[in-house]
Formats: sequence, C-alpha cells, structure tokens
Amino acid sequence: MSLLVVGSVAFDTISTPSGRVENILGGAATYFSLAASYFTSVRVVAVVGEDFMPEHEQIMKHRGIDTRGIERAQGKTFRWGGQYLDNLNEAKTDFTELNVFETFQPHIPREFEDTDFLFLANIQPTLQAAVRLELHHVRLTGGDTMNFWIQNTPKDLAETLKLVNVLLINDTETKMLAGDRNLPRAARKVLAMGPQALVVKHGEYGATIFFREGAFGIGTHPFRAPALPIDEVKDPTGAGDSFAGGFMGYLASQGDINREVLKRALFYGGVMGSFAVERFGTERLQNLTRGEIDGRFQVFRELTRLD
Amino acid sequence: MSLLVVGSVAFDTISTPSGRVENILGGAATYFSLAASYFTSVRVVAVVGEDFMPEHEQIMKHRGIDTRGIERAQGKTFRWGGQYLDNLNEAKTDFTELNVFETFQPHIPREFEDTDFLFLANIQPTLQAAVRLELHHVRLTGGDTMNFWIQNTPKDLAETLKLVNVLLINDTETKMLAGDRNLPRAARKVLAMGPQALVVKHGEYGATIFFREGAFGIGTHPFRAPALPIDEVKDPTGAGDSFAGGFMGYLASQGDINREVLKRALFYGGVMGSFAVERFGTERLQNLTRGEIDGRFQVFRELTRLD
Repeated sequence: MSLLVVGSVAFDTISTPSGRVENILGGAATYFSLAASYFTSVRVVAVVGEDFMPEHEQIMKHRGIDTRGIERAQGKTFRWGGQYLDNLNEAKTDFTELNVFETFQPHIPREFEDTDFLFLANIQPTLQAAVRLELHHVRLTGGDTMNFWIQNTPKDLAETLKLVNVLLINDTETKMLAGDRNLPRAARKVLAMGPQALVVKHGEYGATIFFREGAFGIGTHPFRAPALPIDEVKDPTGAGDSFAGGFMGYLASQGDINREVLKRALFYGGVMGSFAVERFGTERLQNLTRGEIDGRFQVFRELTRLD
Repeated sequence: MSLLVVGSVAFDTISTPSGRVENILGGAATYFSLAASYFTSVRVVAVVGEDFMPEHEQIMKHRGIDTRGIERAQGKTFRWGGQYLDNLNEAKTDFTELNVFETFQPHIPREFEDTDFLFLANIQPTLQAAVRLELHHVRLTGGDTMNFWIQNTPKDLAETLKLVNVLLINDTETKMLAGDRNLPRAARKVLAMGPQALVVKHGEYGATIFFREGAFGIGTHPFRAPALPIDEVKDPTGAGDSFAGGFMGYLASQGDINREVLKRALFYGGVMGSFAVERFGTERLQNLTRGEIDGRFQVFRELTRLD
C-alpha cells in the first residue's frame, strides 16, 4: 500500500571518527523514503531550494520514490552541520541553516490524496496535524517529534499526538514528554496522550514497542527488537529516520496490522537503521537488495532466539 | 554441580528515589550467591567483621548456601554508602570503608577443594588469580572486574584474564579495558586477552555474549538477551552481581556447556538482575520460587520472540 512521508530534505556536513563529508543529501524524509522504498511504494512531501539538483532527485527516483510532492522554493535547501567525534550516540550540532525549510507549508499533491499510510517526520506539530487532517483515506499514521517541540510547543504537540497511531521517539524524548524517568511508566503516560503504540528507539540497543490497552486488539505486552552490534559505525546520521522507514514500510507492505506484523516491523526498522550507519549519508540505503535486508533480518532474529 | 564465589560481603547504606536503607546486608558475593542458589549448590569465600551477626548468615543459610568459607576477622565488615537520586543507572558513592576487606586473603576450606564452577567477583586481580590456581578441579571460571583495576593494575589483571573462561563486565568497562569505543571491536580485543567468552552487561537493555573463535566449539556469532522493562526500580544495587549469579548458577546446573546452555544462562542472568532491583538490597532474592523465575524467563523470551 502507498506510504507518504512529510519531512525535511537537507544537505548535511558531517564529521565522525571515520571522516568528514560536506553538503551530502540528507534530511529525515530522504532517509525515511529510501529505507521504506525496499518494502512498498513511497511518496514524499518536502521543500527544497534552488541548489537541489536533478542528481539529488535521481537518488530518490532510482529507488522508485514518487517525488512529485517535493516543492522547489526560492533560496537554499535546509543545511545542517554536526559532528560525532566524542560520542557516536549523540550529534553535536555545528550549524543549522533552515533556509527554505523555515517557511515550509506542506502541499499535498492531488495524486497523493489516496494515501494509505502516513509518516509525519519531525516538523512543527501544527504542520503535522494539518497534513493528517487533509488526508481522508489514511489507515495508519506514524509520527516523530523532538525535544524542541516537547519543550516549546507542548499544546500543539498534544493535539498532534491525538492524530498519531504509532509514535516513534527515543528514550530521552519519551521520558521528557511524560515527565517520568522510568521507561515503562513514561510509555504508559505517552500512550494516554493518544497513540495506540509507542516505539522507543534505544540506539545501539534496539527498540521497544509499547501498546495501549485495546490497541489493535493485541494486548499490552511490550515487544523488543535488538540491534546488531556494528563493527564500524561510519555515520550515525539518519539512523532513527531509517528505522522509521523500515518500520512503516514493512507495515504498509502488509496492510493488515496485527501483533506479529508489528513485531516484524520493529525488526525491519532495526535492520534499516543498522544499514544506514555503515556508510556516510544515505549511501548504503541507495543500493541494497531485499536479499541483503532479509539476510540481516535473520541475523537479528538469531541474535535473541532460544531454541 | 558445585559453584564457589569469592568476593565481598558488605553492609550498604543506600538512597534511591524510592527511599533510604542503612547498613543492610550486601556485597557482590551475597547477591551472587543468593541469585545462584535457585539453580545449584553454592559456596562462599569472603571475610566479615565482628558486626556480622547470625541473622545475617541465616539469610544465606536459609537458601542452602555453604557459608563455611566466610572468615570472621577482628574489626568491622566492609561498608559502602551510595545514592542513585539523579540516575538509576549509576551509583554516586557517598563513602567506602574497606575495614576487614582491606587485608582480605581468601582461604579456601578443604571441603571446597572439589569445586566445579568458580566465580571470581570483583576483588584485586592477584587474589582472583591465586584462588583460581589453588583449585584444581574447576571446569569453568567466571570473573568480574572494575575500572579501578583496569586503570591501576593492568598487568595483574592481564594475568588473571588468562585464567578466566567467561568475563562478565559492563559496556564502559569493556571499552576501557580494550581501549576501543566500538563495542564489537572492543569485545574481540578483550577476548584476545584470554577469556573464551565475554558477557557485556547493558543494564536496562540486557546483555550480549561474544565468543572467541573456537570457544566451546560453537562459532563466534554473538547472542543478546533483552531485559524486562521494570515499572519500579527500587534499588539498582547488586543487579550486575545477581545477573552473574543467575548466569553462573544456570551453567553449573547444566554441566554441559554448549551454545544453547550459554544463551539460556544469559536469559537467566537478566531474570535474576530484574528481580534484584524490585526491592532494596537482597530482599527480593531471599524468597523467590523457581516457578516465579521460570515465569519471568518466559516473559523475557516472549519479549523478543518472532513466530
């Protein structure tokens, strides 16, 4: 089924212990759509500037991604610079130039109105809500957010959370959003805000999905997918968005949402996140095969499987 | 089969967000032996002071633990005070009074000379090595260490690591010992120092076991056991030692060491660690049943199991 992502496209300048790259294609919508493209047909709504060239769009088109929702605006594309020199788990931001992203107003092309699955990447909560309300055929909405919106626009975020079926955030964001430092308690408080399911991303330790009572008719037992210990993390940028792309892409490919599908989606999220960090930027996500993806799925499965 | 632990017995004063306790029975050997006592027959070698009363020893004896190796010395028992007010994952030490532990020289009673499985809890590496060399029937040795020995007595520790079959330490200690911030690479470097297997404890995220090439004849694929998200962590003290007790206790109960047994042992380690943190001190470990333990083992198993 069709999967639409609304979010940022960016040019990133990144330093890690493995090296440095300048102005490479990045952004949440880019990582998400590439990761999801191995599972289902993907559509993107985003804004770029005059510096976004055909070769950049080609990276998405090569993966069959529908780019008709990428709006060209006057000015430069969103640019971000960061480094992971001391800690591969947390970026230190060097600069953020919002550029055309500052006034981003998502426009949904008419051809995207029949979208089945929606992912609201990390943008202003009021824009996330507006997109959701504009689409009338959506069966399941996934969403992301960040500390900035949790702290500065809590009321707007609360409204958006009522429209999100599955929220995907990390441990710190979960505890901040709930105002509770105990993860399972924090998860229950977040679920009480609206989402039927909460996926908490633990970085190198994998992710846990928590369910609200009655959600999807599958009980409230949490489920955890491990992550593969990776020998060489070249660039952690986009790992969380790639996780979301694998998770939502697999859900959209199945149509029916049940406990087993959600569990497998969590594993596929981890798989795509683990591929993303093996190369700088989106390089590893551009030329995977479904065989490589399913091979790593089996490795992840064996990693915690008792006979 | 018999399992001997050599390590500390202590009186702890602990503050957590759930409350405060003073001078309660603790120490690595105490947590370890209680956790292991649900799986096999356990022996303790440790030193205590004149303040160690029959009621303290009774806590171990009640669980069938052989306390004939607990030496009484003149003076006070080792005392530790710490708090977890800001962070449940890391203790802030308020005071350490080594007392009789400062001059601890482990004496192995003659009745313990036929010991099959040995665990060297976190004490001075030269003492760990001496104990191992004194026991001639040991089939498998587990060991622990800490940042203090890694930084201050690296040569002594290197000699001890050659005598340890399975080393159990946390992420930070693994990276410090290897001088490498990437976990799988650090694990390989630690395994090259001697141990056939390395168990890296990830706290609330579980643990991973890495194998040296050819170890136990089972290949080098790592295995990860998740931990249960716990609603109320009352007191994290002793979680790692309880993990080690569950792990080593299960191994000793099986006798034959193969991949499946090691995997299950890793799950049982996580189970015992998760029980330990639910109450202050060793309270929860004193009155469990094997049924409760196996019930939680199943919950852990379901937590990551795909159909």
